[in-house]
Amino acid sequence: MSMGTVYGVGLGPGDPELMSVRADRLVRGARNIAYFRKAGLPGRARGIVEGMVRADAREYPMDYPVTTEIPLADPRYNEALSGFYAGATAHLRALAEAGEDVVVLCEGDPFFYGSFMHLHIRLKDHVPVKVVPAITGMSAAWTATGAPVTWGDDALAVLAGTLPEPELARRMAEAEALVVMKIGRNLGRVRRALAAAGKADRAFLVEYASMVEERVTPLAEIAGESAPYFSIVIVHGQGRRP
Amino acid sequence: MSMGTVYGVGLGPGDPELMSVRADRLVRGARNIAYFRKAGLPGRARGIVEGMVRADAREYPMDYPVTTEIPLADPRYNEALSGFYAGATAHLRALAEAGEDVVVLCEGDPFFYGSFMHLHIRLKDHVPVKVVPAITGMSAAWTATGAPVTWGDDALAVLAGTLPEPELARRMAEAEALVVMKIGRNLGRVRRALAAAGKADRAFLVEYASMVEERVTPLAEIAGESAPYFSIVIVHGQGRRP
Repeated sequence: MSMGTVYGVGLGPGDPELMSVRADRLVRGARNIAYFRKAGLPGRARGIVEGMVRADAREYPMDYPVTTEIPLADPRYNEALSGFYAGATAHLRALAEAGEDVVVLCEGDPFFYGSFMHLHIRLKDHVPVKVVPAITGMSAAWTATGAPVTWGDDALAVLAGTLPEPELARRMAEAEALVVMKIGRNLGRVRRALAAAGKADRAFLVEYASMVEERVTPLAEIAGESAPYFSIVIVHGQGRRP
Repeated sequence: MSMGTVYGVGLGPGDPELMSVRADRLVRGARNIAYFRKAGLPGRARGIVEGMVRADAREYPMDYPVTTEIPLADPRYNEALSGFYAGATAHLRALAEAGEDVVVLCEGDPFFYGSFMHLHIRLKDHVPVKVVPAITGMSAAWTATGAPVTWGDDALAVLAGTLPEPELARRMAEAEALVVMKIGRNLGRVRRALAAAGKADRAFLVEYASMVEERVTPLAEIAGESAPYFSIVIVHGQGRRP
C-alpha cells in the first residue's frame, strides 16, 4: 500500500473566493480534513470552508492546549505546545501511513507565520507533505486600504507587534513600507513605536481583512490599547512612481 | 448608462491553479481583457490565463515602451513610462465610461510591486476600480524551498536587489528572514551584500517559482552575475519553534 500525503493547504485571508483554485479543489475532494482551533470554538480555518466539505469527510479538529492564558516566555507554554504538536503529528502520520490523504486547513499562507509549520517540521522526514501557498492576510490588508504597499524599490518590513518597543521603533524607522502583524494586545506598544519612528500619521489599522467584518481606520483615530487578533497595521511606501 | 469597472486582477506567481477562485471567475467571464507585455513578446500575464479567455473577449495588450534599454535614473525612462501609463489609462477609462467592465491581468499581487498601481492611481478618481489580491511570487518562492520563511516573531525584510550594496548589506544584517526581489542583473551585488551580512550560506535562489521551470538552488552553488528576472532570493528565519 502506498502512503498518503499530508497537504498543508493555505486558505488565504478569510474570504472563501480568495482561496486558490488548487485549495478549493483539494478541500472539496478531501476525505480527511484536519484543522487547528481554539478549544470550545468552531475554528476560523474550518469556518472559511463551510459548505465546501464533503458530507462523508472525516474531520479532525486539533484544539490548541493554550493560546494566551500562559505568557510566551513561560516554559510551560513551550512544553504544552510541543506536546500538542507531537500528538497531532502522530495522528496525521498514522493516517498517511494507512494510505489516507489528509488536508490540513491553514489560515493565510502555511509557511508565513502559520501553525502548520510545526507539523511540517515533524512530518516531512516520514510521510509525503505538500504545501499549497495562499494569499496572505497582509495582502488582503493592503488591498483593503485601497493603495499599493510598495512602489519602485521600496523595502518592506514585516514585523511582529510582540517585539520590544525600542526594537520595533528602530526597525520601523528604517523601512519605507511596513506591515505589523500580531497586533491584538500589542496595539499600544505598536502605536508608540510608530510615533517614535515618525510614521504614526501614515498608519492604518486593518481589522478582519477580506472578511465581512473588514474595517480600515487611520491608526490616529483608534483609541485604546488592544485590537482584534486579526488586525494588521499597514504603512504604505512612497517610492518612485512615473 | 452606468459606468463599467476596471478590475486589477492578481493572477499570482504563474501556476494557473494558484489563481484565486475570484480571479479565475473574473478572467473566464471577461469581455474585455488588458495586460502589460514587453513589446514583441506574448506577455507573461496573458500566458498564465491561456485557454481560459472567452472566444469573444476583446484583448488589449499594453506594450511597455521601454524595459531595461534605458537606465532607471535617466529622465527619459520616467518620461517614456509616464506617457505610456497615461495613454493606457485613457483607453481603460474610455471603456469604463462606455459601460464596459475591463479585467487587467496582473502578475503576482497588484498592490505589491506591480505595474497595475500606475494605472490605479490615474484611474481611481474617475471610474470604479476594484483590486483582487493574489498569491505573491515570494510566497511561491518560499514554498518552493520546502521550509517556512518565518517562525515565531521573526521579522521579514523584503528588499529590491537594485538597492546600493552597502544599504542592502545593512538591511540584510538586521532582519531574521529575507526576501530579495528584482535579482536579474543584480545577482552579483546581492551575493556580496549577503556575504557582508553573514547570510550568504543560508540563501537560496528560486527561479520561476510555481512555474514549470521552477528551480531552487543554494546561492553558494550559483556562479555568475545575473539570474532570470523571475528570480527571488530567500533566507529563512530561525525563530522560536516549540
